[in-house]
Amino acid sequence: MPVQPRTPPGVLELLPPQQLAFQRMLDTIRRGFERFGFMPVETPVFELTDVLLTKSGGETEKQVLFVQSTGDLQAVEQAYAQRASAPETAVPGPKHALRFDLTVPLARYVAEHEHQLNFPFRRYQIQRVYRGERPQKGRYREFYQCDIDVIGKDVLPLAYDAEVPAVIYGIFRELAFGAFTIHVNNRKLLRGLLEGFGIAVEQHAAVLHEVDRLGKQERSEIEKRLVEGVGLESAVATQLLQLLTGGAGDSRAVLDALRRFEHATPTFTEGLDELSRVYEGTIALGVPEAAFRVDLSIARGLDYYTGTVYETFLDEHRKLGSICSGGRYENLAGHYTKSKLPGVGISIGATRLFSQLVEMKVIGATTSAVAQVIVVAVEPGLVATYAALATELRTAGLNVEVYGGDDKLGKQMKYADRAKIPLVVILGEREQATGIVKVKDLRANAEHDVPRGELAARLRALL
Amino acid sequence: MPVQPRTPPGVLELLPPQQLAFQRMLDTIRRGFERFGFMPVETPVFELTDVLLTKSGGETEKQVLFVQSTGDLQAVEQAYAQRASAPETAVPGPKHALRFDLTVPLARYVAEHEHQLNFPFRRYQIQRVYRGERPQKGRYREFYQCDIDVIGKDVLPLAYDAEVPAVIYGIFRELAFGAFTIHVNNRKLLRGLLEGFGIAVEQHAAVLHEVDRLGKQERSEIEKRLVEGVGLESAVATQLLQLLTGGAGDSRAVLDALRRFEHATPTFTEGLDELSRVYEGTIALGVPEAAFRVDLSIARGLDYYTGTVYETFLDEHRKLGSICSGGRYENLAGHYTKSKLPGVGISIGATRLFSQLVEMKVIGATTSAVAQVIVVAVEPGLVATYAALATELRTAGLNVEVYGGDDKLGKQMKYADRAKIPLVVILGEREQATGIVKVKDLRANAEHDVPRGELAARLRALL
Repeated sequence: MPVQPRTPPGVLELLPPQQLAFQRMLDTIRRGFERFGFMPVETPVFELTDVLLTKSGGETEKQVLFVQSTGDLQAVEQAYAQRASAPETAVPGPKHALRFDLTVPLARYVAEHEHQLNFPFRRYQIQRVYRGERPQKGRYREFYQCDIDVIGKDVLPLAYDAEVPAVIYGIFRELAFGAFTIHVNNRKLLRGLLEGFGIAVEQHAAVLHEVDRLGKQERSEIEKRLVEGVGLESAVATQLLQLLTGGAGDSRAVLDALRRFEHATPTFTEGLDELSRVYEGTIALGVPEAAFRVDLSIARGLDYYTGTVYETFLDEHRKLGSICSGGRYENLAGHYTKSKLPGVGISIGATRLFSQLVEMKVIGATTSAVAQVIVVAVEPGLVATYAALATELRTAGLNVEVYGGDDKLGKQMKYADRAKIPLVVILGEREQATGIVKVKDLRANAEHDVPRGELAARLRALL
Repeated sequence: MPVQPRTPPGVLELLPPQQLAFQRMLDTIRRGFERFGFMPVETPVFELTDVLLTKSGGETEKQVLFVQSTGDLQAVEQAYAQRASAPETAVPGPKHALRFDLTVPLARYVAEHEHQLNFPFRRYQIQRVYRGERPQKGRYREFYQCDIDVIGKDVLPLAYDAEVPAVIYGIFRELAFGAFTIHVNNRKLLRGLLEGFGIAVEQHAAVLHEVDRLGKQERSEIEKRLVEGVGLESAVATQLLQLLTGGAGDSRAVLDALRRFEHATPTFTEGLDELSRVYEGTIALGVPEAAFRVDLSIARGLDYYTGTVYETFLDEHRKLGSICSGGRYENLAGHYTKSKLPGVGISIGATRLFSQLVEMKVIGATTSAVAQVIVVAVEPGLVATYAALATELRTAGLNVEVYGGDDKLGKQMKYADRAKIPLVVILGEREQATGIVKVKDLRANAEHDVPRGELAARLRALL
């Protein structure tokens, strides 16, 4: 009795036309990274458990997937068996675990290879990561992340923060998922604002937690919680939220308004200066004002990012949340090295984004196959001719299939149509004699008579 | 105290210049597959254990790596705890396991999605696979496989067997690792030969096992074992080995000699006909005789391949063994479906091949970075000009970095040199005034004065 073939739950497995669309998306992202000179890095799918989980316990560890060999499992079994006589026997924990993001492996990589890398170190990494999620809609146990980071040794100039939105802009313009806006803020500026409003340092985390909900929840609810939950004075909460949500998307106006802020602290001034320079630098890199927005309501997490922060939204699909996020951090690899490694980076969660855009019909399956041309086999005596013709077309840069059987032409045409191969080359005895080959364009349902010598050029023109 | 950052043993982690060389190798392989119209497929890194391990026990299972979530580990712990009071408590086995090749996942994929696929189904898959190997030189726990397969429904014409060597030829010609030869044989022909020599069916496996060692061990040793171990008559062993190793690489001569074989059985004749047609078909596809060899000593495994078999060797590096192997099989997915799915395919073990060729200095690290051009920052007042210039060059299709700090020019040049960025654009106040930009070619240690308006074209010409 055969085993029922099943894809494991919680992963996105695609049929070939969708896979091709997804691969083209990854190719566009990679090309966008390479345009800015980022170098590729790949790390193994698993890391040593003690290296991966430097912060023991916590939510992250609950989601980690561990890897064990048959030998590892036997050692566990033996340890439990020995407990019968020696109750103190320790059971060995899993030695390996699957990476749950690309940031921890990057930190490990940079710390381990520090002396062989050239700083500022610019790397991109496009690989899958793993989470032991309970499978549910929109939550994946395996998904692609597409990351870039620039890592400095001791220092990293702010110019790199201004480059990041230009990378994002280039990629999402080419992906053509519709209008998008890159929202940029600065954590120092935010902290300085809270200081300026006289909010105690102990309250900052709670306030930023609420700020993070702007745009997702009603402002009045957030304001209420800031007063009743966090304990801000009502007037402070109102003014703060007004400032954070003001400007109506005009970055220059927002920055100008901040320059007039009456309670500026040194942190505030430093943050405002950084944000202004990131704004100017990004615009100088050709990112249009319409795609960039200084947005004081972007807070992003609490402990990791220390300066510039980014989120990106599709204007027509705000409810997807940010599709590309990141920021500046003080020190990448404090768990692994005493070197100070500041950096700035972003991540695109490609699997989730792709599946959502497919569901919303923003992305369709590819409308044509990898093969651009199929040579059908209408005359068994001409098999060698078909082979030579296909080789000639491949040498001319076309992706070409030759139909391999002696099925009736109707069946061959049906195969080409279902496979979405756009152009069919038909060469029978008559075409061989006249030197005029038939080309069927299955997309236009049109037929062309093409002199044999012009075939490659004409096929290319038809594509 | 920081944790020591360590790459897990048994994996190949590369520094960025090597990673770039490896990625270019994978890109070439992918392009070679796409040239023949193969469609991409990716499967999840883990499969359900019962689906992956349809054949329970055996060598394969010993090498499988299993995946367990925190919840899975807790369930194991609980089961062992319950054994104290209920000794019969079953311990749950791991629900997921990492794929150990791409063939079993392909079988599962085709069987599961059979009704949504277009047959003959042509797919390529370039992903990593996992083995619980004891880490040692040349053995990896994680490595890339690059596979193509053509899968038929019920039948698959022999024409597809002739296409495979053409795919191999196109790829290895472009990879330029030196001269290579694709060795081709047919399992039916081999079986028919043994039948013709009157060797009992029960002895075939043992004989083919010895045949597989031709080229790796002394022929006299193999002959001795065929007689003393397997029990062939001495004259039969001699004649058989003579026939299997004859022809001196002249495919046509080997085929002609076989046509004169006196003890032809129906299986022999069918195999010889197939092998002849694969040879003719491959040559028709433009593969030169020098790169193709009918080689009767290629046996490849025992139970899986049923017709054509392929191995590929680098002529100057025979000791690497076959760098691209595969063959024709009767039925891909018998464990998962009652449909008969014959196929033909090959696999390139890219990680092992790459690491061996690096060690032998056939492959070096890339001599230039992803970035083709770096704009150095010599004048703080011109930062916006550098940004606009970089954007212009990127739009013209170049991969461009802008140096982000205000370091001295010497430090910036050292960065460019270490990063292996070939071209440096220098634009200071003087160049801004004259409209003549300086371009340094770090490879040639040459300097060029280039009019601002011709910059993109000149940089492209210099690359």
